[in-house]
Amino acid sequence: MTKPAYDDQNVFAKILRGELPCHKIYEDDKTLAFMDIMPRGDGHCLVIPKAASRNILDIAEEDLFAVMATAQKLARAVVEAFNADGTTIQQFSEPAGGQIVFHTHVHVIPRFEGVKLKPHTGEMAPQELLAEHTAKIRAVIG
Amino acid sequence: MTKPAYDDQNVFAKILRGELPCHKIYEDDKTLAFMDIMPRGDGHCLVIPKAASRNILDIAEEDLFAVMATAQKLARAVVEAFNADGTTIQQFSEPAGGQIVFHTHVHVIPRFEGVKLKPHTGEMAPQELLAEHTAKIRAVIG
Repeated sequence: MTKPAYDDQNVFAKILRGELPCHKIYEDDKTLAFMDIMPRGDGHCLVIPKAASRNILDIAEEDLFAVMATAQKLARAVVEAFNADGTTIQQFSEPAGGQIVFHTHVHVIPRFEGVKLKPHTGEMAPQELLAEHTAKIRAVIG
Repeated sequence: MTKPAYDDQNVFAKILRGELPCHKIYEDDKTLAFMDIMPRGDGHCLVIPKAASRNILDIAEEDLFAVMATAQKLARAVVEAFNADGTTIQQFSEPAGGQIVFHTHVHVIPRFEGVKLKPHTGEMAPQELLAEHTAKIRAVIG
């Protein structure tokens, strides 16, 4: 495959620059975590590196590690916050891999017995619900 | 949720101890990578830590980082080996999260435009096909 270049006009780059809002859950030197506005289930959140990269094919190892450390923190936090029965972690690279926004991101989704993931319909969750879920996770993650 | 203990009779622990065979792709001090015998697509492979852990909820950070370094190596390798258009990475924790074998593992799946992931049917791929795909990836990964 051809390796496309990073385009800093993607929505996650805009969130990082403060040009777009997000429901922020957690932030450290290298990563930012916030709610997916089109959740495939309650508590579906995202972790992104602050440094520019398109996906797993080009991300620097130190950024990948930082993202995964935050993903683990979130996985534990959503299980506690939502009393979940497990988690599903996904990372998509390039359109064929399921990627829609071309800044590296890892999905962390709390899972519940008997509840399937909702399809990715492109439908936005109500802002109040996202704010409520953000508060629940932040209360655990400290 | 209750946090179940690690059970060393799981199939990946048996593979690590050499009690079960695998189509090995790559190995280093901390990780082992091999073909998923029930692939959801051509070239679907798995990375596991050598140290015991059940999933992302209990894995030590150093093992998680090692697994992800190998997953990135594999992602790049499968794209090259299969001339893929992208990759999908998944990590499931606990049955509700999609986990079936209770030793931490990360799925690395090469993806192709217009080709959906096959459902997880539990059907095994032919051994010759898995051997052929292993050779293709090993030729790239060195």
